[in-house]
Amino acid sequence: MQSIGVGLLGCGTVGTGVARILLENASLLKARVGAAIKLKRVADIDLEKDRGIPFKKGVLTKDAFAVVEDPAIHMVVEMIGGLGVAKELILRAIENGKHVVTANKALLAVHGNTLFSAAVKKGVDLAFEASVGGCMPVIKTLRESLVGNKIESMIGILNGTCNYILTKITREGSTFQEALTQAQARGFAEADPTLDVEGHDTAHKLAILSALAYGMKINLNDIYVEGISGITPLDIDFARQFGYTVKLLAISKNLEDRVEARIHPTMIPENNLLSSVNGSVNALTLTGDRVGDMMLYGYGAGMMPTASAVVADVVDLARNMLSGSRPLRVPIFSYQKRRIQRLPVVPIGDIHTHYYFRFSALDRPGVLSKIAGVLGNHRISIQSVHQKGRKTNGSVPVVMLTHRAKEKNVARALSEIAAMDVVDAKPILIRIEEEGTP
Amino acid sequence: MQSIGVGLLGCGTVGTGVARILLENASLLKARVGAAIKLKRVADIDLEKDRGIPFKKGVLTKDAFAVVEDPAIHMVVEMIGGLGVAKELILRAIENGKHVVTANKALLAVHGNTLFSAAVKKGVDLAFEASVGGCMPVIKTLRESLVGNKIESMIGILNGTCNYILTKITREGSTFQEALTQAQARGFAEADPTLDVEGHDTAHKLAILSALAYGMKINLNDIYVEGISGITPLDIDFARQFGYTVKLLAISKNLEDRVEARIHPTMIPENNLLSSVNGSVNALTLTGDRVGDMMLYGYGAGMMPTASAVVADVVDLARNMLSGSRPLRVPIFSYQKRRIQRLPVVPIGDIHTHYYFRFSALDRPGVLSKIAGVLGNHRISIQSVHQKGRKTNGSVPVVMLTHRAKEKNVARALSEIAAMDVVDAKPILIRIEEEGTP
Repeated sequence: MQSIGVGLLGCGTVGTGVARILLENASLLKARVGAAIKLKRVADIDLEKDRGIPFKKGVLTKDAFAVVEDPAIHMVVEMIGGLGVAKELILRAIENGKHVVTANKALLAVHGNTLFSAAVKKGVDLAFEASVGGCMPVIKTLRESLVGNKIESMIGILNGTCNYILTKITREGSTFQEALTQAQARGFAEADPTLDVEGHDTAHKLAILSALAYGMKINLNDIYVEGISGITPLDIDFARQFGYTVKLLAISKNLEDRVEARIHPTMIPENNLLSSVNGSVNALTLTGDRVGDMMLYGYGAGMMPTASAVVADVVDLARNMLSGSRPLRVPIFSYQKRRIQRLPVVPIGDIHTHYYFRFSALDRPGVLSKIAGVLGNHRISIQSVHQKGRKTNGSVPVVMLTHRAKEKNVARALSEIAAMDVVDAKPILIRIEEEGTP
Repeated sequence: MQSIGVGLLGCGTVGTGVARILLENASLLKARVGAAIKLKRVADIDLEKDRGIPFKKGVLTKDAFAVVEDPAIHMVVEMIGGLGVAKELILRAIENGKHVVTANKALLAVHGNTLFSAAVKKGVDLAFEASVGGCMPVIKTLRESLVGNKIESMIGILNGTCNYILTKITREGSTFQEALTQAQARGFAEADPTLDVEGHDTAHKLAILSALAYGMKINLNDIYVEGISGITPLDIDFARQFGYTVKLLAISKNLEDRVEARIHPTMIPENNLLSSVNGSVNALTLTGDRVGDMMLYGYGAGMMPTASAVVADVVDLARNMLSGSRPLRVPIFSYQKRRIQRLPVVPIGDIHTHYYFRFSALDRPGVLSKIAGVLGNHRISIQSVHQKGRKTNGSVPVVMLTHRAKEKNVARALSEIAAMDVVDAKPILIRIEEEGTP
């Protein structure tokens, strides 16, 4: 085999990055791989746009289906995204015996089990390094480098938009809305930011990582998801006074017969390395029974960092083909198919963690004792209390950190407290993560 | 092929860790790999030691050469270390057509080109993930994940002993000797710590990384090496006042036709993520032309983190065998053999960087101007000066940070200044690194 034929579906931001690396770094790739990787066809709905790439005549096409049928193409790179035609094209490519590379985390989180089964049945590879963490090799690290480890937990910052916004609020005291507007102006947030700021994008990624780490079927629906749109500069400021930073974390823990998997704004100690991860950067801490804590850090999005991860997958599959390896040299989801289990995700009400509460209470004697009384009734033990005199409309913020408590009890207590006459706004809750991070 | 036969040479700390992972996590490995990895023979000079492992009868042997001759063994794991018999055993194993896994950075840094050629000639694999960075997948990241990138620079903390000692000095104001003694007492430093504290171990690792990153032959001898035994709490304290932390860094830069490769104590800005890497931990920042900055972080030494990396290599090679792949699926040194160049390493005198100087000068008028005059004559421009009144025996420390200057000029200036009557001790120099780190 003298060269590997690649077909690219979708030539938007990341797709253009992939095309550029394959063309601009072609000589470097050949020096490393020992054969040429040829971008034979590129399908996109927009053939007029100037992508700054001198595609040869006949490479660009509007017909994505023609690409997945083309016998000269060994490998299809799907960069269309979304749950629509991308799925159909990937399944057709698999059916035609072509290997597939994708960065489509939403598709994998929702239909990954189906795609995975189709690929295994047909005996082709499905690679998706770029679906989580951009340039960070999280998928390869889980599937290969930590193969001798039982993964105990994963805690990470997996959405650059949210981290950019939280960094802005933390550093400049902006409101969520101000920070979001700036992120949009600077190209760090989409026009419709819901998928990012409400945590769904992070949940897609955690669904994929949990499957790989624990040998479980992908289960997006049971992941608890809470975004950052309710985060205020006031809470970030209180967090700082207690020695914490607020990050949107993906948290996943291996409890043997069950797993925790949740996305929410989280307070972490300032000396935790994840606290120093600022701006539109991603980082993931992996804890294995043999390696202890390990962290990966890098650009989680953007044209080139993501394209770099896509090209790593293309090369990985090219190396399989060039070395005569059978496909599925590494099992797609890290475990042999028959060893993949259905592991239940712990409902959010059943988790135990530390909490930060902020109540907006009337500035009257006895209020604190009433609140504390309700918490006590629900077996929530207070670690520290902070009552600041910043009165707004007759109310003061009462801030508390708790010892480990059960979420279900916390929810009940907070709903009782919210109903009290002396409390005049919905209580704020931020979970605290003390463990599992370096 | 139902199972893969592994022979282990050397069952000391890391060797024992490898044996434990292969035995204790055998079921997990089988679920991931799809076949059993069997530890068939273990050679060590000490057969009596209790390693807490129930080896089957006949597994343990004193005869390492019998292991590399055993036809039931597909893969030899060399954990003896050093430049002696390890080399001979590896070459014999290669000659016998067995794949080899090693963590022996000294051997690779000194004889890597020979071993590499022998393996390529015979058509077997030589894997060495555990030789650099313990559990961090630095080798795999360079050879696979960043394959689409031209690597521009690598900056890292690659020796846990040095980082432990520097962290101690920084946090507790201990002297180097006190910190070393404590490191030895806690098992973080060898009885003879020279290889670690004088920077040679770090140099071995950088020699390997540079070869992989830039496609060059291993060249240990031209790497500039300076250890940490001259670092004082006083200089660390001054560094802190200027907003810097002192780390022993491996620094390597791709200048196209030449490379920089040097090991020395380095001042880095406090907000650089590497500044937060404390204790016996390793971290490596990689900068690629496509990914920008990426960082890996984890335990760089110790029984289990290193053994985890060894097992990752064992599985990688096992997966090649099980999938019918030809050996050398990924080129051992990241580039096809014929594309590996001899790239010169820039002599230390020719580098340009920022500097910290500390002079011990008599507390007299005009001294500062004399020192500044000499620096000016050698085209060294001062960025800031700090003269503290802490007089010792009539002398005061004069501390300066410079703009970018050429090392050769700095050396000449410092030797002139050292000869001045008003200067009563050898000037202290610490290089500053402002670039290439996140």
